[in-house]
Amino acid sequence: MIDRRDMLALSALGAVALGTASNADAAPVTPDQASLSLHGRKLHILDLTHRLTRAFAFTPGRLTMEAVEGSGAKAGMALNRISIVEHTGTHLDAPRHFAPDGASAGDIPVSQLIVPLVVIDIRNKVKADRDARVEPRHIVAWERRHGRIPAGSCVVMLSGWNPLKAFSSYGSLTPAERRKSPGFDTAVMDILMKRDVRGIGVDTMSIDAGEAMPAFPVHQAWLRSGRWALEGLTNLDRAPAAGGLLFAGVAPLENATGMPARVIALF
Amino acid sequence: MIDRRDMLALSALGAVALGTASNADAAPVTPDQASLSLHGRKLHILDLTHRLTRAFAFTPGRLTMEAVEGSGAKAGMALNRISIVEHTGTHLDAPRHFAPDGASAGDIPVSQLIVPLVVIDIRNKVKADRDARVEPRHIVAWERRHGRIPAGSCVVMLSGWNPLKAFSSYGSLTPAERRKSPGFDTAVMDILMKRDVRGIGVDTMSIDAGEAMPAFPVHQAWLRSGRWALEGLTNLDRAPAAGGLLFAGVAPLENATGMPARVIALF
Repeated sequence: MIDRRDMLALSALGAVALGTASNADAAPVTPDQASLSLHGRKLHILDLTHRLTRAFAFTPGRLTMEAVEGSGAKAGMALNRISIVEHTGTHLDAPRHFAPDGASAGDIPVSQLIVPLVVIDIRNKVKADRDARVEPRHIVAWERRHGRIPAGSCVVMLSGWNPLKAFSSYGSLTPAERRKSPGFDTAVMDILMKRDVRGIGVDTMSIDAGEAMPAFPVHQAWLRSGRWALEGLTNLDRAPAAGGLLFAGVAPLENATGMPARVIALF
Repeated sequence: MIDRRDMLALSALGAVALGTASNADAAPVTPDQASLSLHGRKLHILDLTHRLTRAFAFTPGRLTMEAVEGSGAKAGMALNRISIVEHTGTHLDAPRHFAPDGASAGDIPVSQLIVPLVVIDIRNKVKADRDARVEPRHIVAWERRHGRIPAGSCVVMLSGWNPLKAFSSYGSLTPAERRKSPGFDTAVMDILMKRDVRGIGVDTMSIDAGEAMPAFPVHQAWLRSGRWALEGLTNLDRAPAAGGLLFAGVAPLENATGMPARVIALF
């Protein structure tokens, strides 16, 4: 049973396919990396994006597609109307998701969408605790190794989570287990803001840990400060912990509180 | 009067706001460039994307947004359902748009979306001829100056066209004038395929010149060959003619024949 408040929370998160996800639905776009040359230097590209499939829609109407009238085989042209909740699949949360006067997906300039990438690996902790958080000590450990987090960067949590796997097992979990998923601890918000971090990202479907929902303290603090977030990232285990860049390729739709995106790492 | 066949063609192209576009609607996302450092080298980013506004929707239902039930001020969270025709604003045409079994937007890997950028400037010709085409001699001239077009690249037409300006003046044009807009000549398709070019792009809303519609010979030849296209690009006058890269940031939506995108140049 999912109550009404949980339903809205889950809807916001693009969460739970209630056992409908199959492995076929979850197939990534392949190949998911590229390397090419720019100014004579090798540039590696890694796709951090899940293929956007119905596996990311937990209610039948969340993601639909219908042919535009008159299109099709006879017209020699295929053309669809898409209907989608903004926060589906790998997507950006714009400040407006939680800040009524905040920037929409249409207001964020490229200068804020291509940024240094910082990967915080908490996979070991997640093995022992399904509700693990990115804590201040993880930030301290990263900085001890790589130096101060660059201003304007995006700090992402690598928890090892696969939302599609989580969705497909949702039906077999206890209510207590369903509420457990890794996320950022509110205690790191201040530190990241002091570092002038621009965005945060996660490989789960929420920057808030499961047990923090539906209060959403991290969404509240982070998005209301005018910053953005990325949810549903993948392949973070193959991105460099430091020294790379992240680009959030989000169509600049005016007034949108979020948008499915193509997110890449460059290194 | 727009007849039914034209209407479908225009719908495919995301064309004509029938005088509803205002300058406010057409405001770009600013700042539209960034520069940052990667491996100690300066990297310039230029946004080639129009802000995705209602100015790009010529029928009232082409682009709509409604709050998800239960979201809003009281819930402390804004969340919308978007309904949009795939080929709206700056967008990618996937092969499937014209090839029934062709790759969808969900099938194109990043290795084919980040590619060398080739800019063919035909602005002088467009001044004299509203229906100017990219012709073989333009390709020859580019190669004489910059060398052979790199395999796997994206070749874009810089015509100086601004679709929003064109849309807003649509009502004052004669039927003959309405059919005139720059595009690729079918005569260059073979050359570009021989160079193993991956994508083509335009600053108009169609890779076909206006007078070639609704037969769409360029769409037919190019997309059916398994290649993609970008329509509605902007800022091409500020991109380097050679030596840069283009990234088409398109959410990998399964089965989509096209998708609004965030397109950038890197140089």
